[in-house]
Amino acid sequence: MPYRAWFQCIAGCDEKYKLNEIIYHCKKCGNLLEVVHDLDQLRKHDAKYWKDLLDARYLRTKWPYGSSVWGKKEFVCPQVKNENVVSLYEGGSNLFWAERLGKELGIENIWIKQCGNSHTGSFKDLGMTVLVSMVKQMISEGKKIPAVACASTGDTSAALAAYCAAAGIPSIVFLPKDKVSLAQLIQPIANGALTLSIDTDFDGCMKLVREVCLKNNIYLANSMNSLRIEGQKTISVEIVQQFDWEVPDVIVVPGGNLGNTSAIGKGFLIMEAMGITNKRPRIVCAQAAKANPLYLSYLTGFKEFKPIKAQKTLASAIQIGDPVSYQKAINILKKFDGIVEQATEDELANAAAQADKTGLFSCPHTGVALAVLKKLLEKKKIKAHEKVVVISTAHGLKFTEFKINYHENKLKEVTPRFANLPVSVPPSYEAVKTAILEKFEGFSL
Amino acid sequence: MPYRAWFQCIAGCDEKYKLNEIIYHCKKCGNLLEVVHDLDQLRKHDAKYWKDLLDARYLRTKWPYGSSVWGKKEFVCPQVKNENVVSLYEGGSNLFWAERLGKELGIENIWIKQCGNSHTGSFKDLGMTVLVSMVKQMISEGKKIPAVACASTGDTSAALAAYCAAAGIPSIVFLPKDKVSLAQLIQPIANGALTLSIDTDFDGCMKLVREVCLKNNIYLANSMNSLRIEGQKTISVEIVQQFDWEVPDVIVVPGGNLGNTSAIGKGFLIMEAMGITNKRPRIVCAQAAKANPLYLSYLTGFKEFKPIKAQKTLASAIQIGDPVSYQKAINILKKFDGIVEQATEDELANAAAQADKTGLFSCPHTGVALAVLKKLLEKKKIKAHEKVVVISTAHGLKFTEFKINYHENKLKEVTPRFANLPVSVPPSYEAVKTAILEKFEGFSL
Repeated sequence: MPYRAWFQCIAGCDEKYKLNEIIYHCKKCGNLLEVVHDLDQLRKHDAKYWKDLLDARYLRTKWPYGSSVWGKKEFVCPQVKNENVVSLYEGGSNLFWAERLGKELGIENIWIKQCGNSHTGSFKDLGMTVLVSMVKQMISEGKKIPAVACASTGDTSAALAAYCAAAGIPSIVFLPKDKVSLAQLIQPIANGALTLSIDTDFDGCMKLVREVCLKNNIYLANSMNSLRIEGQKTISVEIVQQFDWEVPDVIVVPGGNLGNTSAIGKGFLIMEAMGITNKRPRIVCAQAAKANPLYLSYLTGFKEFKPIKAQKTLASAIQIGDPVSYQKAINILKKFDGIVEQATEDELANAAAQADKTGLFSCPHTGVALAVLKKLLEKKKIKAHEKVVVISTAHGLKFTEFKINYHENKLKEVTPRFANLPVSVPPSYEAVKTAILEKFEGFSL
Repeated sequence: MPYRAWFQCIAGCDEKYKLNEIIYHCKKCGNLLEVVHDLDQLRKHDAKYWKDLLDARYLRTKWPYGSSVWGKKEFVCPQVKNENVVSLYEGGSNLFWAERLGKELGIENIWIKQCGNSHTGSFKDLGMTVLVSMVKQMISEGKKIPAVACASTGDTSAALAAYCAAAGIPSIVFLPKDKVSLAQLIQPIANGALTLSIDTDFDGCMKLVREVCLKNNIYLANSMNSLRIEGQKTISVEIVQQFDWEVPDVIVVPGGNLGNTSAIGKGFLIMEAMGITNKRPRIVCAQAAKANPLYLSYLTGFKEFKPIKAQKTLASAIQIGDPVSYQKAINILKKFDGIVEQATEDELANAAAQADKTGLFSCPHTGVALAVLKKLLEKKKIKAHEKVVVISTAHGLKFTEFKINYHENKLKEVTPRFANLPVSVPPSYEAVKTAILEKFEGFSL
């Protein structure tokens, strides 16, 4: 096989490991690993070759290349054989031109990348297809991997369970008892995962899942597994592809565990290394003010990074005080003239609601990114003429309670400036007409 | 403009009306209208021309043709100018090869068309983009249309509100008071629709919305508006496209108001008329046993059709006893060697859950279709070697309560054969190991 990739320590050790090895940390220094590709092989073809190939495959029928992750297989995970790919047709999500929202914010060229419009409703599908495919490959090679497991309360467990269900591989989800609602769990439950409700906190679950995986050769699907980043980095490639191979000026991405910030940068770096692009966007990492360790580090010029205790935030998926991928994210932000900005509960909830009124249906994390965009426009750190892409990480249908509470003015620390409650009227034509005239300005029925 | 289409009475009157006329019924006989295309114009190009054109546009970047609805613009709604198209990148949903489910059901070639993986989470987007675009066009021509309205408790109002929000056109949703939960309404609320909660039943809402529309030139977006069918029919074209222009043997589609059954057929008929295909699939309309007027009519050989009073069913979107489009659907089923079959509550809920265990996340309506497929396989009306496509109409994320109640055994008339509840364990390695061994057969940790 001409294209090759391997695990390599992010701290610069010489250690290398095969992608079909069950390993998550450097054996020498204990640091995280990342997937590194053989660039010399990739560079044997020029940019035109790659662009034509990627375009020819994009969302087409030839398995598995119609998936926008596997359409980029040579620089995602070349070692997986096509027959072992477990794909649910990832990517290809709409790059929504937010014309009306842009007018309200004073920026013309604003695009929302709808990553949540996917099989399980979040961008996690992009990474999980790579991880589960590699597990299928290892099993096909004779490795005894009885299951894949993770500790996660949300999107990761949903994606893990769905991909394992499609592949027929057992999956196990570890959760703190009484901390998670059935509504949050219904995806892994429906997809047949063993869902363990454990009488401990999240850290306790994490400790236990690592022990169980280690002792039983169960594959661990949490963020320290860097295969997922390879799938997630295709977001950047797909955005550039959707702009006819033009690089936007700014990418805004919500940041919690920071794998996604790192993945977005990794996507641009490999395109650059392959000669596909010759420009880097600024990358903006948007954090909730309640869970902002990277923002605090940014204020010191990334001189130091201190984990914090995250407070409860509506942006629950990024409520993380001690992010696994902080070092990867800082490395990326330094290379991409990066900015970290934060948003309060009030700002994120109102930003999501304002976007919804112009046709979107935003999750709270997308709200964080939109609020940060607004703030940076006001501070003139993003200019009105710049081409900006906001990464929307999940489908709003996963967060209907957040939206109901917003419109009913039941969210703490939030003044809902865009609330839009149903209007009760008696069943008469005149009453309906009055309600219409009251709602819409300038109407003359 | 070379390509033309118009409204025409389905009863065969000679009446024709322009697509930019605000009209829903034949002025002569009061029957429904349908959109008819100038086939002579379409036939001026051969099949190869059309297939190449459609493939070249499919999910690409040239506005508005990347939308899989507007990529077929010439035979969907040619009169809308591109600048008036209101599109959220419709179609392009995964045609999921249900390998594992097929093995369980004893059929190899079974595909699930994931129409619910869309901007608002249901197939309604496909039709709404056509309707709202035509409204925008009429407004641009100087017609005074102050708003678009519908009476709907579910997916139609969600799609209407989102497309109107994107276009900046006021939208109004009419609902019976206390019959609809806020969770059902949160999409139109978030998208800024005027949501009227009216102290009457659904029929009362329907009467009122028609009066308000008629008296105020407000455009009516309910099913009697046949523009939406033109968008929905692209499902058939897209399926054939995704099979590299091969027609499957059977299409199974859930049926309530029956617009979708009619649209699926219409898509195949126009492809046939244009020379793109030379084979028709069998069309199977799947009804809930609680709302089965078309099934009862089918048992009479479609000799008679009697509206019924629908009973409460989990498949709430097809809980319709007096379907608007029954005549259109019967016409189609007669042309497509059609079958109508029904599914009980127990059958539909278990069919959805069985599919979920193999990686899907099915809405109850998709459950009806899957249960009917299973039944027809058992009856040998569908053969094990046939290539079957099941239309999945909405994303399961819209029906988490249905799924939770299923797994908790709280659904009436349903014995959950695939229930999978969380397992509570203390935080010890041994306890977790025991739980794993109990769940998965043949494990040896």
